[in-house]
Amino acid sequence: MMITVLKKGTTQGQMEHLIHWLKNQGLDVHISHGENMTILGLIGNTSKIDMELLGSLDIVESVKRVSDPFKQVNRQFQPEDTVIEVGGVKIGGGHFAVMAGPCSVETEEQIIEVAMKVKAAGAQILRGGAFKPRTSPYDFQGLKGEGIRLLLEAKKATGLPIVTEIMNANFLDLFADVDIIQVGARNMQNFDLLKELGKTDKPILLKRGLANTLKEFLMSAEYIMSEGNQNIILCERGIRTFDTYSRNTLDLTAVPALHEMSHLPVIVDPSHATGKVRFVPPMAMAAVACGADGVMVEVHNDPMHALCDGAQSLRPEQFADLMERLRIVRRAVEQ
Amino acid sequence: MMITVLKKGTTQGQMEHLIHWLKNQGLDVHISHGENMTILGLIGNTSKIDMELLGSLDIVESVKRVSDPFKQVNRQFQPEDTVIEVGGVKIGGGHFAVMAGPCSVETEEQIIEVAMKVKAAGAQILRGGAFKPRTSPYDFQGLKGEGIRLLLEAKKATGLPIVTEIMNANFLDLFADVDIIQVGARNMQNFDLLKELGKTDKPILLKRGLANTLKEFLMSAEYIMSEGNQNIILCERGIRTFDTYSRNTLDLTAVPALHEMSHLPVIVDPSHATGKVRFVPPMAMAAVACGADGVMVEVHNDPMHALCDGAQSLRPEQFADLMERLRIVRRAVEQ
Amino acid sequence: MMITVLKKGTTQGQMEHLIHWLKNQGLDVHISHGENMTILGLIGNTSKIDMELLGSLDIVESVKRVSDPFKQVNRQFQPEDTVIEVGGVKIGGGHFAVMAGPCSVETEEQIIEVAMKVKAAGAQILRGGAFKPRTSPYDFQGLKGEGIRLLLEAKKATGLPIVTEIMNANFLDLFADVDIIQVGARNMQNFDLLKELGKTDKPILLKRGLANTLKEFLMSAEYIMSEGNQNIILCERGIRTFDTYSRNTLDLTAVPALHEMSHLPVIVDPSHATGKVRFVPPMAMAAVACGADGVMVEVHNDPMHALCDGAQSLRPEQFADLMERLRIVRRAVEQ
Amino acid sequence: MMITVLKKGTTQGQMEHLIHWLKNQGLDVHISHGENMTILGLIGNTSKIDMELLGSLDIVESVKRVSDPFKQVNRQFQPEDTVIEVGGVKIGGGHFAVMAGPCSVETEEQIIEVAMKVKAAGAQILRGGAFKPRTSPYDFQGLKGEGIRLLLEAKKATGLPIVTEIMNANFLDLFADVDIIQVGARNMQNFDLLKELGKTDKPILLKRGLANTLKEFLMSAEYIMSEGNQNIILCERGIRTFDTYSRNTLDLTAVPALHEMSHLPVIVDPSHATGKVRFVPPMAMAAVACGADGVMVEVHNDPMHALCDGAQSLRPEQFADLMERLRIVRRAVEQ
Repeated sequence: MMITVLKKGTTQGQMEHLIHWLKNQGLDVHISHGENMTILGLIGNTSKIDMELLGSLDIVESVKRVSDPFKQVNRQFQPEDTVIEVGGVKIGGGHFAVMAGPCSVETEEQIIEVAMKVKAAGAQILRGGAFKPRTSPYDFQGLKGEGIRLLLEAKKATGLPIVTEIMNANFLDLFADVDIIQVGARNMQNFDLLKELGKTDKPILLKRGLANTLKEFLMSAEYIMSEGNQNIILCERGIRTFDTYSRNTLDLTAVPALHEMSHLPVIVDPSHATGKVRFVPPMAMAAVACGADGVMVEVHNDPMHALCDGAQSLRPEQFADLMERLRIVRRAVEQ
Repeated sequence: MMITVLKKGTTQGQMEHLIHWLKNQGLDVHISHGENMTILGLIGNTSKIDMELLGSLDIVESVKRVSDPFKQVNRQFQPEDTVIEVGGVKIGGGHFAVMAGPCSVETEEQIIEVAMKVKAAGAQILRGGAFKPRTSPYDFQGLKGEGIRLLLEAKKATGLPIVTEIMNANFLDLFADVDIIQVGARNMQNFDLLKELGKTDKPILLKRGLANTLKEFLMSAEYIMSEGNQNIILCERGIRTFDTYSRNTLDLTAVPALHEMSHLPVIVDPSHATGKVRFVPPMAMAAVACGADGVMVEVHNDPMHALCDGAQSLRPEQFADLMERLRIVRRAVEQ
Repeated sequence: MMITVLKKGTTQGQMEHLIHWLKNQGLDVHISHGENMTILGLIGNTSKIDMELLGSLDIVESVKRVSDPFKQVNRQFQPEDTVIEVGGVKIGGGHFAVMAGPCSVETEEQIIEVAMKVKAAGAQILRGGAFKPRTSPYDFQGLKGEGIRLLLEAKKATGLPIVTEIMNANFLDLFADVDIIQVGARNMQNFDLLKELGKTDKPILLKRGLANTLKEFLMSAEYIMSEGNQNIILCERGIRTFDTYSRNTLDLTAVPALHEMSHLPVIVDPSHATGKVRFVPPMAMAAVACGADGVMVEVHNDPMHALCDGAQSLRPEQFADLMERLRIVRRAVEQ
Repeated sequence: MMITVLKKGTTQGQMEHLIHWLKNQGLDVHISHGENMTILGLIGNTSKIDMELLGSLDIVESVKRVSDPFKQVNRQFQPEDTVIEVGGVKIGGGHFAVMAGPCSVETEEQIIEVAMKVKAAGAQILRGGAFKPRTSPYDFQGLKGEGIRLLLEAKKATGLPIVTEIMNANFLDLFADVDIIQVGARNMQNFDLLKELGKTDKPILLKRGLANTLKEFLMSAEYIMSEGNQNIILCERGIRTFDTYSRNTLDLTAVPALHEMSHLPVIVDPSHATGKVRFVPPMAMAAVACGADGVMVEVHNDPMHALCDGAQSLRPEQFADLMERLRIVRRAVEQ
């Protein structure tokens, strides 16, 4: 469903010509005449209409799509919450989960030690970066396949399911035993990657791009679902704004807004969003308070030696303290 | 304290000329030579130095102020929290307060009814708009002086202290019995107004501008303090970003960040930030969870007939339910 | 004219209740039923309808105002360009003017020397700051009334009309002999100031706020016009975005867009927008190339000693060179 | 070169510990003591230092990299302009080129007709989309390989070199006869794609991401150069801001800024930036006026039937008129 407003001065002939063209596209057209303008309500399958083309016509004042362009991710078409289940852990539909671990996987000792500590504190899923997207070609790019191998060792040692980021569908084979595949913010609109992941049945953790609207975010989830994979977790991780006191601006209102628009679970990553350890606990608390289905937190056994993004890693004891406070806030939400 | 980086290719003579000028401004200059650049560390009272002028010189690569430009609002110079006390209600330093009421004051019956209901639900302060800043000159601009009179009636009836917005220092007399004077987002950098308010001893509730950094926000508080008024409450109410699903983007990370930089109390206004009733409860919860010293919530006895901003007003029974849940989250924070 | 989309699931009774209310507000309502939604076209004077209130109702999916909220500034209601004439200089409607001068007025010698030099290079109007809005209360705030007196001396010496900024309507008397009164970006929504200026007959140079949309910008011009003053010049001076390589992001597309929406002249200030002398000439060229009716450029006789904003001031000889090139670009535009 | 500011209250022992660690990374450390803070100037190869890790330490107030993180794209290391030459057409270093053509390739007749017309008007390079990145999985995704085949037919018919977008390195074989490979805004940080393109010797037209800083943009060019491909054209195509009157906000100040930082040619795409035909000519003029080395303009033989992005396509006769005016502005710039 779409609304097209015609400019004052549009002739009867011009209007009829446009309506004829629209009807040829299979649409019903409802006309409302105002004093200065005319509104056309376009009913039917408007998804094939190019809004920008329509908006470019001389006689058209503005065009607005009324129905959402996303289908399968839309709560209108599936009112009940999607629940993702992985290795016995559930996320969404009232199930809350914490993912924790280091920014980068470095050594077997490191990842196993962190995994044991976050498990002891109550985390249900282990996170760790093997392939690392870095702004500079000269920065450490991750241990890649070897990093995934080490994560699997930590999974074996602790029983925690693991989540790690993919950057290129050509390496999908390496992710065969990974429990949740993460798509980073920079790849949120790497449509070819999304389509490839849509052909798997792995749960996908899709991060919101730095400058993407919630509708674009849901359209990227739709890319995955349109290929057949229903297992998607949405992750808010901060947007880019004019202020610089934190790395990005964590947009927590996105949590209730995404829950309203979609049935998919929504988690929050306060570590990447804020970029500062001291802001991670309060923002993780806030994420839980506004209804997030989970949080993803960086934890490192020795922040001074982290190879990357160390600035946003809690030490295990800080993480354990945070976990206790999150449980209290979570109770308030569930009430 | 300031850092100036000189470009590769700066001659000895040029550098000496600049250092001579800087020393004449009363600064000490420390020099560090690198391979491609030279760094000058400027020590002393750099507040009189025009950073942009310095940055415009041909030999200067960049200039960075290291010490904060704000003084009296700075936590470095007053480590303990400022506590604002008004009519027996405390805000800041561990004291949490809820301000509630309608967007606009309309009638005596309306404001007294709302005041009684929000008091019953646990609000400590009554809010209501008398002077209304409106984007359009043709929109309702508030009851002005008469609105303040009605608020004072509601104060008499309930004992609640009142907070209402000022737009023009010429009307300061009308605010003689108002407990807290609010400065709206659009006037955050109306410096003449800030200075006039700095000459009073009224608590000032200063809202963050739509596109202002936290440093600019604190500099505006500094304008008030520099004239002698120490009683300032900072209020985060959303910033302007590219997304449009909520009216503004509520920047909750500002709460811990402002607490870190300043000793002043920090509250959050989720009603104006989100512009949608359904997002107000989760975002009020989140504000409390990340350590806000209070929240400001619009409550209206009949949203359908509100004259302005009705979209963001809770009904009293929704507000009472929210108050109960806020108390639980607050307990988690205080732990 | 306004469009309201009703949610799927709205009952016939709810819809009739809403339509009844809308008709009571004096509107005609046209109904279009779609598969999942219903569209109401509201015809008549919708300016009194609170869009946000309407949008907050449970049954309402979205609300969109179709006709522009601005009237007197709207090109629909006055197709021919407004031409501002001041001291023999015309701006708008094919007349192009350059305003030049120092950021701050400092001494009589300084302002007269600059005035003579910019006049010699071809500038038609002298600019200079007397009242200076500064982020910090500790920064130089301008010579105020004395600054205006010095500008008037320069006007006497050169015959150039002058433009300078007002920050507070209480000082309006001091601007009696000023030719164009400037409203700065921070005061673009200081509605009380705009209304006072609307009661004068002075040309007003209104700068766009850092984070204001073009519609808000035009609504602020409407505030002035609604009080009777038709003499307004719009000025684009950069908006706030995420990038920091220039002070603000100069939004030149605003020039053709404002020309399309309004009959008022549009000028550009590349000095404040970019904050860097070396970007001023190319961006002034670009402003002329996309159709600006004028540019406002900072010129200083000795940038090293400017008291404020010196970084963005050209020297007179650079300005003279720029003027020559602007004339060539202007010819290409006029073709 | 890097600057680290230590907080007031840092002990001598803490500082020595940090300096010891920094020296172990191979850096020289210069110390400047101020009243409230201490500055460390880090000299040497700081590219391996994790700024965010350093910034996260309790004793560190802030960290700033002084030298640019980009090397090969940096004008400091190659003062003379890079000139890209393709099929006899030069771009950069004083050579100006216009790329024109339809958003999407549709049919052989269409692309050949447009190619002949834009050539007649003076365009030097033919653009056309074969692989189309679309927000929605349900929108037309381009003719893909067949589209490239049709472009090659048009090249054969007109002699114009062609530029078209790649989305996935797996399809690189299809681009064997393409003259310039375009990387779209959404893939600006698809680092794996950039690296693959760095291994070819094809000229790459790299578009700036919607929310990327100029430094990030140059780092992405650095990814390509670091693999050996020196042939890169930078393209500004609008950034995402809060205003919605044009599709994106064209950031023309980026043109002189990129020229200052890098030796690579810089072109502008006003069609995608503004999204509206009527803004394309003025903004193309402005792009030339501020020194762009080229513009990329959408031209379509029948805008009403364009399959995508038709809204921003000029008709050939409008394009021919624009070309004449661009030549005049270009003369003013070359003066």
